[in-house]
Amino acid sequence: MHSFKDWVNIFAAHFSTAHFPAQPASLYEPGNYFLAMGGKRIRPVMCLMGSELFGEVHPDVYHVATAIELFHNFSLVHDDIMDKATLRRGVPTVHTKYGESTALLSGDVMLIVAYDYLNKIEPRHQQRILGLFNRTAREVCEGQQYDMDFEQLEQVAMPEYLRMIELKTSVLLAASLMMGGILGGASEGNCRHLYEFGRNLGIAFQIQDDYLDAFGDPEKFGKDVGGDIRQNKKTFLLIHAQETAGEADKAELKRLMQENPADKVEKVLAIFKSCNIDAWARSLQQQYLDKALGNLEQIAVLSARKKPLVELAEFLIQREH
Amino acid sequence: MHSFKDWVNIFAAHFSTAHFPAQPASLYEPGNYFLAMGGKRIRPVMCLMGSELFGEVHPDVYHVATAIELFHNFSLVHDDIMDKATLRRGVPTVHTKYGESTALLSGDVMLIVAYDYLNKIEPRHQQRILGLFNRTAREVCEGQQYDMDFEQLEQVAMPEYLRMIELKTSVLLAASLMMGGILGGASEGNCRHLYEFGRNLGIAFQIQDDYLDAFGDPEKFGKDVGGDIRQNKKTFLLIHAQETAGEADKAELKRLMQENPADKVEKVLAIFKSCNIDAWARSLQQQYLDKALGNLEQIAVLSARKKPLVELAEFLIQREH
Repeated sequence: MHSFKDWVNIFAAHFSTAHFPAQPASLYEPGNYFLAMGGKRIRPVMCLMGSELFGEVHPDVYHVATAIELFHNFSLVHDDIMDKATLRRGVPTVHTKYGESTALLSGDVMLIVAYDYLNKIEPRHQQRILGLFNRTAREVCEGQQYDMDFEQLEQVAMPEYLRMIELKTSVLLAASLMMGGILGGASEGNCRHLYEFGRNLGIAFQIQDDYLDAFGDPEKFGKDVGGDIRQNKKTFLLIHAQETAGEADKAELKRLMQENPADKVEKVLAIFKSCNIDAWARSLQQQYLDKALGNLEQIAVLSARKKPLVELAEFLIQREH
Repeated sequence: MHSFKDWVNIFAAHFSTAHFPAQPASLYEPGNYFLAMGGKRIRPVMCLMGSELFGEVHPDVYHVATAIELFHNFSLVHDDIMDKATLRRGVPTVHTKYGESTALLSGDVMLIVAYDYLNKIEPRHQQRILGLFNRTAREVCEGQQYDMDFEQLEQVAMPEYLRMIELKTSVLLAASLMMGGILGGASEGNCRHLYEFGRNLGIAFQIQDDYLDAFGDPEKFGKDVGGDIRQNKKTFLLIHAQETAGEADKAELKRLMQENPADKVEKVLAIFKSCNIDAWARSLQQQYLDKALGNLEQIAVLSARKKPLVELAEFLIQREH
């Protein structure tokens, strides 16, 4: 068995190879630039860990893990265009550096190359893996669309926000684990629990993401802190504040979102703080973490094998970037 | 055996079904809007015809044909964003009607759904079909990138333009035929000849496309006639004119491309005409058609079975839209 940190290193070494042809450089260099930014590689590592939970890791798992990481990066390149984000991981986004057309096309080709990795696995697993990958990829796009739709709304109810997060973030974490499980020979039941573990963990993960976007340390976070607030993005924090703040704060929030004053971020953060949002977010996160750990317990393997996944879960909700 | 026109009707009936889930409508309605614009459905029909060349058409061929048509539409939705095209088939493009972000994401999801159709075929063919599909999809993106790169250049040599066209247009026609052939049980050699038939036919097809963009009847053509000229797109016509026009016309072409005057389209067309471009384009097209028909002859099946493909080839180079 390997720890979560072992897997991060193993995958990083495996992933640092040429994924694209050399020419046309104008198409592939932007993709290499984006991949070289690094990132936590959480999803492929989850795929590897989901497989090791059930035994030896087959070489096919690396192909699927690579496809997952390329898919994730494709979605980030395109999301950055849609969100007009200028920075990611502290450096200019692809469309900022190379223009929107090239960013769009580099993202497209990254997705196609992801499918090429999926085509390297043993035929006996291909249909099931591809089916889960496709469904998940579609759901991630649906989540991004709901996210954009929500930007046009003044207020979104918490259950709708949760559903969006599930699609945009959770299902890919869940499917990464489950694809590993499938290749590791897990039973249907174990696969289902593993998926649910990832789904609940994904929500706890997103709570951390929303929290960091508002309260993170800009040096560690890499993105513009307060970006969500500036864009009126619906987040766990904003929705909770809209639902629980006093009448004066509610009116002030509405005004800030409509008028976009220069001190918007600062003032919205003050309202968040006055709602005791920190304690609330921690407690909500703990609830989802507990659900996730409950799902993990249901998986019929020796509990010693689950230790790396418990460590991973703890890392994900304590991370500062 | 069915004629090319039979197949167009058969495929149209087959394709007019729901390819996407209902929700979120904001994501899937733009995709339905684009598919409802219609189009010639040449690529999926070529896949069906490529299969029937060797025998009965297996249901899997319809899945692959559908995937090909969805891929093609995905590439058009994204190309229209990159090219800032406002009209296609006489109606507003997706990004013009729904905004760029939604167009981008609708395109992404269309590509993913294409892969879902590929996942429906019998496992024994999956790896080979997916491999060819992925390679082709990557090449189409490379072609689009070269096309955009060429817009920044003053002049492009004919062989480089030909290579771009091969990637952007020909390989998908060639691969459509060959995927049909693979599913129809064609030998390696027959598959290769079929692919070459499609590749050469694709070049003849693009000559027609470039010709129609300059000289087509706006009513029949559906796009803005002269769009390529306005954008300084390298085309067979422009490159030939740059290479063969007299010195005065060459200088005038250069000036028109730099200054973009209001009468640019009209003046460039006049230079094209003075180069006798019509006869030149017809002759070049005939050369590629002859090559293609030579490839078709090499395929080891009864020549009566090839008749529909000959009809298709003739249609493609005579079409007015």
